[in-house]
Amino acid sequence: MDISLFSPYFLGSYGENNHEFEDIFLEFFRDHVYWRRSFHPEDLPPVSIIEKQSSHYLETMAKTKQELHKLSADLKQSVPFSNPRYIGHMASDLLLPGMLAQFITALYNPNNVTEEAAPVTVKMELEVGNKLAEMFGYNLDADKGAVAWGHLTSGGTVANYQSLWMFRSVKYYPLAVKRCGELADIDFVDGQGRSLQGMSTWELMNLSIDEVVQIRVNCLNKLKAMGDEKYDELIELLREQRIEHQGHIDFFDQHKDLKQPVVFVPATAHYSWIKAMKILGIGSKNLWQVPTDEKMRLDPMALKQLLLKAKSENRTVLAVIGVLGTTEFGTVDPISDIVSLRDEMSRDEGLNYYIHVDAAWGGYLSSVFRDENNRMREHEAVKAGFEYFPSAKVYNAFAALCETDSITVDPHKLGYMPFGSGAFIARNKNMCGFVVQEAAYVFDKKNRFVEPEPKLNQLGQYIMEGSKPGAAAAASYVAQNVLPLNAEHFGKLPASTIRTTEVFYHKIAALSEKLAGKATLIAPIEPDTNLICLAINPAGNSSTRVLNDFTRKVFEHIKIEKSTPMFSKEFIGSYTSIFRKNINDKVAHNLCFKLGLDPHSFVRDVEQVEFQDNALFVLRHTLMNPWLSDDKNGVTYMDMYLNYLEEIIVKLVEQ
Amino acid sequence: MDISLFSPYFLGSYGENNHEFEDIFLEFFRDHVYWRRSFHPEDLPPVSIIEKQSSHYLETMAKTKQELHKLSADLKQSVPFSNPRYIGHMASDLLLPGMLAQFITALYNPNNVTEEAAPVTVKMELEVGNKLAEMFGYNLDADKGAVAWGHLTSGGTVANYQSLWMFRSVKYYPLAVKRCGELADIDFVDGQGRSLQGMSTWELMNLSIDEVVQIRVNCLNKLKAMGDEKYDELIELLREQRIEHQGHIDFFDQHKDLKQPVVFVPATAHYSWIKAMKILGIGSKNLWQVPTDEKMRLDPMALKQLLLKAKSENRTVLAVIGVLGTTEFGTVDPISDIVSLRDEMSRDEGLNYYIHVDAAWGGYLSSVFRDENNRMREHEAVKAGFEYFPSAKVYNAFAALCETDSITVDPHKLGYMPFGSGAFIARNKNMCGFVVQEAAYVFDKKNRFVEPEPKLNQLGQYIMEGSKPGAAAAASYVAQNVLPLNAEHFGKLPASTIRTTEVFYHKIAALSEKLAGKATLIAPIEPDTNLICLAINPAGNSSTRVLNDFTRKVFEHIKIEKSTPMFSKEFIGSYTSIFRKNINDKVAHNLCFKLGLDPHSFVRDVEQVEFQDNALFVLRHTLMNPWLSDDKNGVTYMDMYLNYLEEIIVKLVEQ
Repeated sequence: MDISLFSPYFLGSYGENNHEFEDIFLEFFRDHVYWRRSFHPEDLPPVSIIEKQSSHYLETMAKTKQELHKLSADLKQSVPFSNPRYIGHMASDLLLPGMLAQFITALYNPNNVTEEAAPVTVKMELEVGNKLAEMFGYNLDADKGAVAWGHLTSGGTVANYQSLWMFRSVKYYPLAVKRCGELADIDFVDGQGRSLQGMSTWELMNLSIDEVVQIRVNCLNKLKAMGDEKYDELIELLREQRIEHQGHIDFFDQHKDLKQPVVFVPATAHYSWIKAMKILGIGSKNLWQVPTDEKMRLDPMALKQLLLKAKSENRTVLAVIGVLGTTEFGTVDPISDIVSLRDEMSRDEGLNYYIHVDAAWGGYLSSVFRDENNRMREHEAVKAGFEYFPSAKVYNAFAALCETDSITVDPHKLGYMPFGSGAFIARNKNMCGFVVQEAAYVFDKKNRFVEPEPKLNQLGQYIMEGSKPGAAAAASYVAQNVLPLNAEHFGKLPASTIRTTEVFYHKIAALSEKLAGKATLIAPIEPDTNLICLAINPAGNSSTRVLNDFTRKVFEHIKIEKSTPMFSKEFIGSYTSIFRKNINDKVAHNLCFKLGLDPHSFVRDVEQVEFQDNALFVLRHTLMNPWLSDDKNGVTYMDMYLNYLEEIIVKLVEQ
Repeated sequence: MDISLFSPYFLGSYGENNHEFEDIFLEFFRDHVYWRRSFHPEDLPPVSIIEKQSSHYLETMAKTKQELHKLSADLKQSVPFSNPRYIGHMASDLLLPGMLAQFITALYNPNNVTEEAAPVTVKMELEVGNKLAEMFGYNLDADKGAVAWGHLTSGGTVANYQSLWMFRSVKYYPLAVKRCGELADIDFVDGQGRSLQGMSTWELMNLSIDEVVQIRVNCLNKLKAMGDEKYDELIELLREQRIEHQGHIDFFDQHKDLKQPVVFVPATAHYSWIKAMKILGIGSKNLWQVPTDEKMRLDPMALKQLLLKAKSENRTVLAVIGVLGTTEFGTVDPISDIVSLRDEMSRDEGLNYYIHVDAAWGGYLSSVFRDENNRMREHEAVKAGFEYFPSAKVYNAFAALCETDSITVDPHKLGYMPFGSGAFIARNKNMCGFVVQEAAYVFDKKNRFVEPEPKLNQLGQYIMEGSKPGAAAAASYVAQNVLPLNAEHFGKLPASTIRTTEVFYHKIAALSEKLAGKATLIAPIEPDTNLICLAINPAGNSSTRVLNDFTRKVFEHIKIEKSTPMFSKEFIGSYTSIFRKNINDKVAHNLCFKLGLDPHSFVRDVEQVEFQDNALFVLRHTLMNPWLSDDKNGVTYMDMYLNYLEEIIVKLVEQ
């Protein structure tokens, strides 16, 4: 791929597009200033020319400049994310259109909590949500079933919380309706006309989201038909039966046959999932970790066994989380297996679960799979231009996204947007109705009935956060308009970085061969995307502990540390750990075999501290910078990096 | 107060400081670009001059400009927050130093989740936290007891969640330690050397935060002394006993004598508190609303009664929330009474609770109460320059902040910072240890022991969010350096707006007199800060319903609506509702009396829809714009607004 394509997309690691940035920003900054002057131009400016000559004014401006000078000086110790020599965490240069849109919009400072404070950018946020939903294959056409909805969050962590918050709210709803029916002697029915009274707790706890939405619609319609007074009374009665009102303790006390719910994540899941379980009061012990296979992907057979275990214990499965691009390894869970397993379990065991995909990292890779008409491209078409990507499993995972219930994706990661910009996308926007929280001052008798359809311009009613910057919405909105989320446009960017990763993978093998007798280098996990790790073992060593100590010494050279000026670094990387407890025996043995380690040195519980360790310390590279394969220096940045590593390794081995 | 003081602080409603903004931004933008070029200057720029002449490059730049042009055009329908004619929600112009710092820092795009991704701005964030803590009177000197800590959030809503999340984590800790002790046959002790085994559940659930911190220190030290292997085993056993691990259900199942916890808020509290209870799984019914007095402040006598009720039901009081500047009325709860009631209840009833102050709105007003050495100013000194502010109750509320446990404050409200910037400030930073969540890849045998003191540079381990923009931290940091948070500097700004509110209050009375025979105007609640409401009743009317319909018609003129271009508005305001159920009979009767309403028309439950209503619809004004009392046009903006209102009212009355 010709990476010169990306020339107009970024400010540039050399600030190449500095004039373009300046010109455009200044133009729209001035436009903003003149906009300020257009609102009642007859008003005299509160700040007069003469005041600007006062000593107080001049001193304050001097103080402002001085403080900003100090800030600018301090910021020079920032991490140079925009440079291809930075290959550490999930950060890079930013898309110029998004960056400029964010800056321009910040001047207007809209607050996307409601359209009243952001008449322009709330619409943009909903449109960003729609485009992301389309990229995942979710439906937007009301004639074709459930309509998707998405919005921005401050980051992926909050989007992850939101999935469990909404899922819980939907999951326990049928029990509340049933109980309300019992108390008021009303027969509520589900979408198929079945009476809820006749359904068991297990049945009611194992309905799909769309089925629960239908129960809510039926219930609200029934109450509406009962007249104003009865309606008010029963809506209140229903509200009082919900888990949100009761809290876990009293709700479970009322439903004695309920057991603690379970949430499944792969062993590789981000730590925000443990936090989510704690914050939501469900408890981290009810987060069941599913073992991963040799490619560090969730093992569907293991998931099935655990689901059966949950059923045998009469436990509700609140959610199964699949990860599309794990934080540590970039690996892609078999989403299609999670989806088909739901069909199977639902049919055979009456066990239904909601599916959330944590695609904070990998979500934007979906653009590679979409054509200009937003259709899923054929596997063969996607494969062209790559050596390995996407494997059948990875292809199927992306193809199955449309059948999941919600997705986390971070514009501030592979969307190349500024921090903090995450997103939560739901397949069925009517999930909103279960969590709606109106502000205290709203009272409007004309719209007294609760409508199943959410009023999305009142964004704050359906999300975890309150006030939020409209500038982030404008950034993604403009970036998506300039570079639509399909293979022909935006997709070329992540595609290029995946191709870079494939090349890097081969170069690791070549370097290992070159260093034969000195060190062994392997990519411990075959990369599914554009994240790749590197394990390094000095020749002749069989101890995991010694390998770890050696690799830590290598890492010292590419590590950010206070004692070394940032700019004296050749490259900046990151590290991670492959814990023995998170991989099976076969995978562990295989890793040891490839590296020349004694499998007895790589253990779950350390007994011999000098020899053993419970994790493998590896270098971790996020290859998202657009210029990694640039060869204007006669050699690509990847090659420069590997040459540098070679130098370090040789020096350390020869010490 | 001479408002010309504020001339250098803002971009200005006329963009008066446009050249200053341009000059400074450009200077530091260029500095940033040259910084990019200083990291390995020997590397050739990835984007070559020749590529910039390609048709693809030119077309993409044209597309970028075109999309930004559309954005800029759309943004012209934004709400003109910076103009003194905007007196609606909590938004205004932004402090120029903060705005510039945010823009400059955004170019570097630091991620404050950890120092590794933000070596500069994490420090700034902690410093912002420290300065806010000092403004509230919290201690920062380790020699003088518990040390405070604060950090930024995406907004006040998340900061509110964080308080309950941390409180729960601390509150239930002693029970976990006790149980761990029982299981492992170890005698853990509290700070006074009392054995936890000998303490009842009630006693353990009614310790102060500092006492629980001491229990944790004692416990960790005891485990550390037992040697590595035992330590690992027991730390794990302890972890398993915590409510975070067990979830509410199993934890309560293990502690049969525990009842559902209660959280107290005033009836005026923000709706995020209900959301918090739902999200955390505690349940909204366990949020007990404390009635307010005639000034719309939490009634301490009512709180006491409810606390006694909680005790009689053997309920744990997790928190009492005081609001410092309610969202709807700007009123200030009696924080000092909440504090002294805790002493009393603790002494007399053995009932202890944590105190959180939701100062999202009013927090920055604390600056008015602090002198240049950060000492609390005398009441008389603060009063000078005001007519009413601060009343003894309001003064005492601010003085008592130092004795609370944590505080929410929003830089993006009265801190005049861009959205989204909230903050959570804790009196005792060791609360962090109870919620710490390390990322999955951390394993470091050298630092194997859990230390009671948090490592604050790893910010992401102690907060709800993950990745977050360092730019917001730099904004507050620079703004605070230019305008320190005391009465001599930053404080002059909120002081001026409070004085404006006092003048406005008198003008309402004058206008009401002028309109005698046509309409009655009153401020239904005496303003505690710079938020003021206005109730309008056409002469001769005694029906609340008619008043509401009339005021809604007035509001139509100052309301943002899609059908009217924003710039054709004379003024832009907001509204709120005073619900009958939230005020007592005396207050309701008094309101009706002043307005000339029949008290039977202002009811909890509407029976006669044409006559009665359950809430009073009032105009709501946030007077935070620095230029409201500017009189360069011969008349202040306040006067212009009131003249405009007069015109509307007269026209409506005469229709």
